[in-house]
Amino acid sequence: MSSTFGHAFRIHTFGESHGGGVGVVIDGCPPRIPVSLENIQLELDRRRPGQSEIVTPRKEADTAEILSGLHDGLTLGTPISIFVRNTDQRPGAYDEMAVKYRPSHADYTYDAKFGIRAPSGGGRASARETIGRVAAAAVAKQVLHTLHPGIEILAWVQSIQDIQAHVDPETVTAADIESNIVRTGDPAMAPAMIERIKAIRADGNSVGGIIQCVIRHCPPGLGEPIFDKLEADLAKAMLSIPATKGFEIGSGFSGTLLTGREHNDPYRMIDGKVRTTSNRSGGVQGGISNGESILFRVAFKPTATIMSSQETVTSSGDNTELAGKGRHDACVLPRAVPIVEAMATLVLADHLLRQRATDHRS
Amino acid sequence: MSSTFGHAFRIHTFGESHGGGVGVVIDGCPPRIPVSLENIQLELDRRRPGQSEIVTPRKEADTAEILSGLHDGLTLGTPISIFVRNTDQRPGAYDEMAVKYRPSHADYTYDAKFGIRAPSGGGRASARETIGRVAAAAVAKQVLHTLHPGIEILAWVQSIQDIQAHVDPETVTAADIESNIVRTGDPAMAPAMIERIKAIRADGNSVGGIIQCVIRHCPPGLGEPIFDKLEADLAKAMLSIPATKGFEIGSGFSGTLLTGREHNDPYRMIDGKVRTTSNRSGGVQGGISNGESILFRVAFKPTATIMSSQETVTSSGDNTELAGKGRHDACVLPRAVPIVEAMATLVLADHLLRQRATDHRS
Amino acid sequence: MSSTFGHAFRIHTFGESHGGGVGVVIDGCPPRIPVSLENIQLELDRRRPGQSEIVTPRKEADTAEILSGLHDGLTLGTPISIFVRNTDQRPGAYDEMAVKYRPSHADYTYDAKFGIRAPSGGGRASARETIGRVAAAAVAKQVLHTLHPGIEILAWVQSIQDIQAHVDPETVTAADIESNIVRTGDPAMAPAMIERIKAIRADGNSVGGIIQCVIRHCPPGLGEPIFDKLEADLAKAMLSIPATKGFEIGSGFSGTLLTGREHNDPYRMIDGKVRTTSNRSGGVQGGISNGESILFRVAFKPTATIMSSQETVTSSGDNTELAGKGRHDACVLPRAVPIVEAMATLVLADHLLRQRATDHRS
Amino acid sequence: MSSTFGHAFRIHTFGESHGGGVGVVIDGCPPRIPVSLENIQLELDRRRPGQSEIVTPRKEADTAEILSGLHDGLTLGTPISIFVRNTDQRPGAYDEMAVKYRPSHADYTYDAKFGIRAPSGGGRASARETIGRVAAAAVAKQVLHTLHPGIEILAWVQSIQDIQAHVDPETVTAADIESNIVRTGDPAMAPAMIERIKAIRADGNSVGGIIQCVIRHCPPGLGEPIFDKLEADLAKAMLSIPATKGFEIGSGFSGTLLTGREHNDPYRMIDGKVRTTSNRSGGVQGGISNGESILFRVAFKPTATIMSSQETVTSSGDNTELAGKGRHDACVLPRAVPIVEAMATLVLADHLLRQRATDHRS
Repeated sequence: MSSTFGHAFRIHTFGESHGGGVGVVIDGCPPRIPVSLENIQLELDRRRPGQSEIVTPRKEADTAEILSGLHDGLTLGTPISIFVRNTDQRPGAYDEMAVKYRPSHADYTYDAKFGIRAPSGGGRASARETIGRVAAAAVAKQVLHTLHPGIEILAWVQSIQDIQAHVDPETVTAADIESNIVRTGDPAMAPAMIERIKAIRADGNSVGGIIQCVIRHCPPGLGEPIFDKLEADLAKAMLSIPATKGFEIGSGFSGTLLTGREHNDPYRMIDGKVRTTSNRSGGVQGGISNGESILFRVAFKPTATIMSSQETVTSSGDNTELAGKGRHDACVLPRAVPIVEAMATLVLADHLLRQRATDHRS
Repeated sequence: MSSTFGHAFRIHTFGESHGGGVGVVIDGCPPRIPVSLENIQLELDRRRPGQSEIVTPRKEADTAEILSGLHDGLTLGTPISIFVRNTDQRPGAYDEMAVKYRPSHADYTYDAKFGIRAPSGGGRASARETIGRVAAAAVAKQVLHTLHPGIEILAWVQSIQDIQAHVDPETVTAADIESNIVRTGDPAMAPAMIERIKAIRADGNSVGGIIQCVIRHCPPGLGEPIFDKLEADLAKAMLSIPATKGFEIGSGFSGTLLTGREHNDPYRMIDGKVRTTSNRSGGVQGGISNGESILFRVAFKPTATIMSSQETVTSSGDNTELAGKGRHDACVLPRAVPIVEAMATLVLADHLLRQRATDHRS
Repeated sequence: MSSTFGHAFRIHTFGESHGGGVGVVIDGCPPRIPVSLENIQLELDRRRPGQSEIVTPRKEADTAEILSGLHDGLTLGTPISIFVRNTDQRPGAYDEMAVKYRPSHADYTYDAKFGIRAPSGGGRASARETIGRVAAAAVAKQVLHTLHPGIEILAWVQSIQDIQAHVDPETVTAADIESNIVRTGDPAMAPAMIERIKAIRADGNSVGGIIQCVIRHCPPGLGEPIFDKLEADLAKAMLSIPATKGFEIGSGFSGTLLTGREHNDPYRMIDGKVRTTSNRSGGVQGGISNGESILFRVAFKPTATIMSSQETVTSSGDNTELAGKGRHDACVLPRAVPIVEAMATLVLADHLLRQRATDHRS
Repeated sequence: MSSTFGHAFRIHTFGESHGGGVGVVIDGCPPRIPVSLENIQLELDRRRPGQSEIVTPRKEADTAEILSGLHDGLTLGTPISIFVRNTDQRPGAYDEMAVKYRPSHADYTYDAKFGIRAPSGGGRASARETIGRVAAAAVAKQVLHTLHPGIEILAWVQSIQDIQAHVDPETVTAADIESNIVRTGDPAMAPAMIERIKAIRADGNSVGGIIQCVIRHCPPGLGEPIFDKLEADLAKAMLSIPATKGFEIGSGFSGTLLTGREHNDPYRMIDGKVRTTSNRSGGVQGGISNGESILFRVAFKPTATIMSSQETVTSSGDNTELAGKGRHDACVLPRAVPIVEAMATLVLADHLLRQRATDHRS
């Protein structure tokens, strides 16, 4: 169980979905960065259940408490610990699930690995674990704003099943995305997406989709080849989010259909800077940012918990059936948008600090 | 520059494409594992240039020397260092590239990051760097064979541009893949793929494609959530390979079109084991292997070096044009197959050792 | 600020002496280890202030709360978070210290490093930070008991200033040590030590001394040369404890007076085992345990806070004087005994798990 | 087997005493640092056998080759690999030692840990392994000179058995130390020390002693509490050197005899800087450098290999006797001086880069 992410800006998350609570310890945060509880709570509120009619109606306030590392609104350079106590626990709702493995969940694999499992909720495999990541990223965002003002990280729902948004990554705004409860960057498509989610939920079923993310105004030079290439760390960060099945940057999988002549990004001097006139590289070349917008997509599978009966087995090895109960998202994407942004922010903050250690310009 | 991969089974690669040579130090390899120079050379030969008519004709023997860590064909438990001296260097071939940034290469970003750059070849960004990975993976393969016999890792070319192979991941064999120089798992499609590569090369252009990889007979329980999930480490491993733009596991991006009812993998007891009757999860659930075949795909962009004139800039900031010279692969996929296998092998060996540290069954 | 210790069994501590509280997150603990809150509270009580008439009279209950990682008294294999809320805060007592650097404290160096400092108490430099270590070690102790029963780790006060204890490391018991409030392994010397501490405190002064520690029944084979030698990790662990100035193992500094012929430990077969007939090596050879008792000593300087006026400077750069206030230990050693044991326990648990990853015998 | 040291400036050593050779890979070195083969060879020559009449007469040229990471005398920011091929191998000289465990050597513990052992020489436990450290430190020294000119690191022999040197750490020079073959900082005591070493060698015996090290002009603010305190990392670095048994900083063990009033270092403003008027802290407070000279001592036991018969056992478990053969140092200290400097240099370079990552002043 490795719950540490990052090298210079490091986070350690802890906590099960049911139990005392969930949280995070941040180590390596520079001192004298302005951070407030409001910064953190704001991001947690974008992630929390019950925020709109298309997400799970569970009532979890997800109220953050800062346990250490701050004084008078400034970071001390010491570990910052943030904790969210669990409140809305209904262990009874999970009795059946304690003995039957939920299909395409982590119940069986946790049992296989650990020989023991948190008996209710998803334990560490619950999306509730991401609270620590989002809280830490709220701090990381302040680090970026202070040390390299101008970096912007925005994610949005690009598709729900086959319903596609049309979004210009260079101009889409946070206001566009937050203007609709599905958090697509294309508000015109929001009604169709919302309708689809509601219909699928009414049918006791679930859907997935694709989240796109852009990082604008990233300085050139971030990324640590050979193994800690920027796209490699972004890929790892995204595939660590529950329910993800794929990652692509720039031209991605569809770029495999082009020839080199079509795919290469020509360089031109623009306003005294080295720029590319196309961006199929997605802002990263050789594992290092090139100053263009970093653009990637993440595939989310349909939610595993559905309200229909499915074939499964018990932990004692008998075939059986199980129908989902409880209050679950029929589509995780609206709430996953801040999580994608959070992981991207953590990757950027980590690489910004790593670059400072050896930067030839300072 | 972070050239370390893995936690328990750790590798450190070094070396530029031009210079003394390239190599690797492996730390954390268990003692008493049988390893021979032949094991290593065999894998390097699958990766080396000049092996067939559709790869670069550069003559690089890539002869490995084991500098430490072995005695009488057994690992000592100490660092294993493997070195391949550079031989076929033609610095002159790169004179123009020393001042002009090759489009969609790492020349500009290395300059931006480091303020200095290996003046010829691709330096660390060259595919030559992967020699160290392939050599280390030959050792990792022996670790898997010794500690958990039966694990099989096979990669093959799934598509070249729009030409698709049809391959059953459960039955494809190494012999199928090695039977054709393009290394597709579908020998019937090999002639079309080879013809496409030759045609595109004749045109001074290049192509990319998709490599698929299967890991068969992986024990349940490997993977270290929350951040070192098996699919997250595989994604990072794959995106650290030069020219990669995407990774997907199991149903991947196309899984976003399904509903949960269609997507979930039902559990059944088969021969006394917990099995799934479909495998859209791709062998991993909640970041931990479930005992089914692990199945993933990696997108490779078309080779950046093409023999046509392209717009670019000089390192002193002037617009110019550049046409590729030298002897390059018009398609990297045939030689990338052993690299994908190598990175998958390194991930598996690392996670197998990590699991041993805390395994409740031993 | 690096607050992580260990590789396989890793702990992350957090918290300032004044503020929300202090705690620890343990990652890498094996699953199914029996752990209770009582295990943890018992060790914390040995460390806490106010436990006897020769330690600080501060009233800190140091009540632990387990926030995650346990179910029904067994570890889940997931991060275990333990938190102790701060209660007895008297910020006012530190007003003068906020502007005057306490001699031989960390006030000045924290300001120099971070440009900011927790304004009262010692922040992270306070001995209160060790609560997280002691709590984590209580869990590590259970890991040792479960995976390798028989390992015993005992520390005791070997000297207070020039008052020396006479202790046989092979036979001293926990009961001997706990029988007296100074925690010496030589109860006959306890009255003299206690009298010295009381006298020095009455004089507004302070004293230091030496703590000795023995690890009995450690299996051969623990330690990871070249850099993570067992004695190297023990040295680091001990020098990370506040107020420590030295570490020696086996013959230590006095061994430099012997010749090789006098110093070498002869091997003999005893009861079918390879044993040494002397133990100047201190149980470690070449960085790896040899099965004999591991024996080391740690030097603690006299407490820096004294009740006399001392020359110092202000944070704004003026010469001034400062006399200590508040309720401090005139001698830290009685409370440092469980901390030395805790750090030794963490080192052993980490190395035991690391050895399991590559052990040739399993 | 963990052969990595450092976090930001990281080194990975490899190689056995007999076999292909020994070497190091440095990762994390900043780009554009001037480094020459001469820098490296100079330090290796201070460490190599055969350099004077009081060290082992083995003829090992220890000629370094730089395999990667440099161009035109500047670091590239990529891994720097340095290799020294083994030449003077006399496997025959070790035949008896292959079956008999040398007392107070690592033969038995390597067998116990790994179940296999390099059959001749000391394998990784040989002092020959330190070649990689010394070579890496020659690079680290250039990093310090470039990024923070003025830092001086000097070590010298402080005692041989009971023969003590008298040295002022503030004024001793490299020339003083290199003026005599024993490398004491007190040339007046050199003849007595040399005579002692020769006499003890003539007797087939060996001696140890103490090496002292000073780091002058270290900037305040280096060190990463809680666990990576500067003294903790120095302690670990020193105890990782073969034959070491103890470490103390500042007042060390003898400081335990003082009271707090005697021990505390008063602060005064001197030339506009915060300074201490004594230095019992040894230049480090709370784990962070305070700008004063960092002063520490390392205990080296007498060389384990002696030319007298000693009781031991065979690897098959029989009691026997063994007398050392071959060409060994009767006293390792003259050659250990550059190794102590090397490890101190590596610690400083690592902490300097770590501080840059989060420095509030840049």
